[in-house]
Amino acid sequence: MTEPRWLDETEARVWRAYLDVRRDLSGTLSRRLTRDSGLTEADYALLVPLSEAPDGLLRARELSVKADWERSRLSHQITRMEKRGLVVREECPTDARGAMVRLTASGRAAIEAAAPAHVAAVRTYFFDALSREEIELLDTLLRRVLDGLPQDRG
Amino acid sequence: MTEPRWLDETEARVWRAYLDVRRDLSGTLSRRLTRDSGLTEADYALLVPLSEAPDGLLRARELSVKADWERSRLSHQITRMEKRGLVVREECPTDARGAMVRLTASGRAAIEAAAPAHVAAVRTYFFDALSREEIELLDTLLRRVLDGLPQDRG
Repeated sequence: MTEPRWLDETEARVWRAYLDVRRDLSGTLSRRLTRDSGLTEADYALLVPLSEAPDGLLRARELSVKADWERSRLSHQITRMEKRGLVVREECPTDARGAMVRLTASGRAAIEAAAPAHVAAVRTYFFDALSREEIELLDTLLRRVLDGLPQDRG
Repeated sequence: MTEPRWLDETEARVWRAYLDVRRDLSGTLSRRLTRDSGLTEADYALLVPLSEAPDGLLRARELSVKADWERSRLSHQITRMEKRGLVVREECPTDARGAMVRLTASGRAAIEAAAPAHVAAVRTYFFDALSREEIELLDTLLRRVLDGLPQDRG
């Protein structure tokens, strides 16, 4: 095995800052979300793609890809949300094995009520810290990282 | 209530890119980590601060702050790691209520074996995508976001 390519001082500092932003920004946004709307980050992560889908309906398989969640995690979360009346499970009309998830009217009301404060918090804690030029630069950097990730995400 | 301040097109694109990096980079790194070392991301998140602490020993309370995890999540994870011999729980000699967590020799061997490949993956998927100038710029932007977060993280 070759000598490991350790991070230099700047890289270690940037990686630490990235991990801190990931942890503390998520933490801040998720605590505000739950306080303001009663929704958890996990609820929100599924309600957004469902609210954007035609008729609020997605195959569980698609929802699991969109959230990048394992099927078992998705299934537990759907069960919790079903109990609270935010979504319902349905059979797929064309594929007996293809379970579907539908947003209920109350689920749509919940995401519509939660979104304004959540977006305002994203603005306050992320965009307000950066200039327009920095935001565009960040776009370039993030896209470069995304393009370098393996397609199979392995 | 005032009109919500929605994100404009650029901001929405950058926020989506940030969420995608957060999800796909973590996913890639965590799958490689587990494949290469048998450790999960959760194991790694606790083994790092323990391996950096004097004698590999931390109060559970401190570990929960360092990882920014709820105490119940920490407790479940410690139980799993204890079963695999990576850590042990100990009593705090000066505070009967203060449980402590100690890294075992086998826990230290596990993090030392896992670190080189994990750091190499961080390099490949994050730093190799960016120039030195961009890395330093990113440092500034991330630090600006961190400085803007509420101190109570609420």
